[in-house]
Amino acid sequence: MVQINENYLKLKAGYLFPEIGRRVKNFVDRYPDSNLIRLGIGDVTEPLPMACCNAMKAAIDEMSTNSGFHGYGPEQGYPWLRETIAKNDYKKRGCEIEPEEIFISDGSKCDSSNILDILGSGNQIAVTDPVYPVYVDSNVMAGRTGDVDDSGCYGGLSYIPISEGNGFEAQIPTAPVDLIYLCFPNNPTGAVANKTQLASWVNYAKANNALILFDAAYEAFIQDEELPHSIYEIEGARECAIEFRSFSKNAGFTGTRCAFTVIPKNLKGHTKQCEKIDLWSLWNRRQSTKFNGVSYIVQRGAEAVYSQDGQNQIKGLVTFYMQNAEIIRNSLSQAGFRVYGGENAPYVWIKVPEKMDSWEFFDFLLEKANVVGTPGSGFGAAGEGYFRLSAFNSRENVQQAMRRITSI
Amino acid sequence: MVQINENYLKLKAGYLFPEIGRRVKNFVDRYPDSNLIRLGIGDVTEPLPMACCNAMKAAIDEMSTNSGFHGYGPEQGYPWLRETIAKNDYKKRGCEIEPEEIFISDGSKCDSSNILDILGSGNQIAVTDPVYPVYVDSNVMAGRTGDVDDSGCYGGLSYIPISEGNGFEAQIPTAPVDLIYLCFPNNPTGAVANKTQLASWVNYAKANNALILFDAAYEAFIQDEELPHSIYEIEGARECAIEFRSFSKNAGFTGTRCAFTVIPKNLKGHTKQCEKIDLWSLWNRRQSTKFNGVSYIVQRGAEAVYSQDGQNQIKGLVTFYMQNAEIIRNSLSQAGFRVYGGENAPYVWIKVPEKMDSWEFFDFLLEKANVVGTPGSGFGAAGEGYFRLSAFNSRENVQQAMRRITSI
Repeated sequence: MVQINENYLKLKAGYLFPEIGRRVKNFVDRYPDSNLIRLGIGDVTEPLPMACCNAMKAAIDEMSTNSGFHGYGPEQGYPWLRETIAKNDYKKRGCEIEPEEIFISDGSKCDSSNILDILGSGNQIAVTDPVYPVYVDSNVMAGRTGDVDDSGCYGGLSYIPISEGNGFEAQIPTAPVDLIYLCFPNNPTGAVANKTQLASWVNYAKANNALILFDAAYEAFIQDEELPHSIYEIEGARECAIEFRSFSKNAGFTGTRCAFTVIPKNLKGHTKQCEKIDLWSLWNRRQSTKFNGVSYIVQRGAEAVYSQDGQNQIKGLVTFYMQNAEIIRNSLSQAGFRVYGGENAPYVWIKVPEKMDSWEFFDFLLEKANVVGTPGSGFGAAGEGYFRLSAFNSRENVQQAMRRITSI
Repeated sequence: MVQINENYLKLKAGYLFPEIGRRVKNFVDRYPDSNLIRLGIGDVTEPLPMACCNAMKAAIDEMSTNSGFHGYGPEQGYPWLRETIAKNDYKKRGCEIEPEEIFISDGSKCDSSNILDILGSGNQIAVTDPVYPVYVDSNVMAGRTGDVDDSGCYGGLSYIPISEGNGFEAQIPTAPVDLIYLCFPNNPTGAVANKTQLASWVNYAKANNALILFDAAYEAFIQDEELPHSIYEIEGARECAIEFRSFSKNAGFTGTRCAFTVIPKNLKGHTKQCEKIDLWSLWNRRQSTKFNGVSYIVQRGAEAVYSQDGQNQIKGLVTFYMQNAEIIRNSLSQAGFRVYGGENAPYVWIKVPEKMDSWEFFDFLLEKANVVGTPGSGFGAAGEGYFRLSAFNSRENVQQAMRRITSI
């Protein structure tokens, strides 16, 4: 009798984005002529950079010839892409990251959940609350949690609340944890971490032999030059952190699919007998066995992000979306909302009006302004009372959404 | 203290293809001017079909405009691709497979290992011997096996030997198993299964509430019109089988990356309490949480495989490689080798000369003929004494390799 992984049955039935989809569909069925503006899911809307398009077309031309055809590539990614990333994203910022420490993949969502494959089941796991749901759900599926309670918290996880009360700063746990998910600039709150804050985390991790899983998918949106873009800008991070990066948001690759994960060669995990084992070797084996690399065509597109044209074009995209964020911030502040984030991140985190919870505010905006956002409680219990708006949309739609929200 | 998944430490250190790579590198370092011909790894060599190239370029053009841009697609794949596959690969062959039962992915290697995510740890697992190593290694990594013995067999797995002795036919186990990996046309032996044989497996699975994981990555190479291309051509398979398919070998997508997995909606797994649970729902949740879909550009390329031009072009590719296979079969038969496969599969499975084991024959061919193949023992203990040659190479290289092998 074939048995299923029963941990899946612990997952909350109403996963955030499908539930939003269900409510939106219900609304559109009732009002097919409503001109809905979607500022919910963090998906980019502007065209792919021309440098990437040109590079991908050239790659297709190669693939259509005998001499330029590429079959299976290295599961870890092509050396030319890994070298370009090491040079531009790391060495230029003073981080000692070597090309072979960079693993190219088809997405940070995949990597940040697949990483659990190489980690043991006995780790005490910490996540912020609110948090990107994939970190939690992938742990639930892997059997690393207990059951869920009414507020949406899973037994066995250590939740680190971030809210107005603590300035959206993740506090170092008082009890030891083994695995810590951090995401800065933060999804969903748009908060950032400065070097001092990250250094506290690195010190904590080193003192506790803990591992930081650092999600830097939104680093391109950092405007403040003092803020770190990578955890490896912090001394000692090579001994305690894995970093996830993506081309989804900076270069608009959400539908093109390319990302990467950095695992320093000296980074260690432990057996139950306290023997130290290289995490690099385990991930290398995982990727070689369970993954076949990213499309050659797409990797050539990602490489073009680092060309002069590519850099100019992605700067243009980031500036465009950050102007949207500023419009959202300013409009809602002036209308009396308390707003956070949106200064170094494409997300604006709004305190919902009193007497409404997150989902009520979601329904209110949908019905009254025909604007779709994301209820904070969907990101965790401590997200209750907040609401996320994304800066990813056309200028016209963002302006129109703000006019509608501020006039209800 | 962060703990690792210690199951990884059970894996054999010398994974097949890296070990081949090591020996080849060693040889090339010694003889840099040798003109090595690689018939080892099953990687295609002919250019991408022009229909696919044109479709992908058109998709890039769309992505470079505001109106044609595509961000996140459905994690399950675009409906137009799923519909095209259902119609062409299934309905045309009389299989009742609906589009929503087809999950588009970036590779069958990923899918056939990721599928373990949704299955329980208590299943008794059967694999053929020899076997595609990913089935075994992914089970080892997931902790579904014991330790490895000297012959390369892992404790806890049920091995089904296939060899000359039983006509390379996988025999139905006498003891019950819960999960069965089958691959036809077979990698590595090139053997096929007829409808009667597959029906025995389906009957066995239904009688035992077992699940068949059917890998049909090589179905395009079937020449015999009586042979089934899909497990769903067998009555009852919808209730007991998952099928993996790929564009890697038929359309040369090994470096472009697109595949799909079929999970019928009525297919059930069980909880320990014997409650029946839809596997479709579990896989849908797994893919939604841990995967972000395949590049829009690549999916448009895959769709073009089913266009009139695409179909003609992939027929041309398959014919070309099957002619290579025939050349390999005929040359080696005439030279006195016992050869199997290569008639409905791109692999030829050779009995190595007596007094040599697989690796000795590997070294012998490498040194004396400068030809790289794959030692059968790398696919499992029962592969000892055999050797795999792949038909994926240029005509000239295949002919040259045969001249060299038959003259030593």
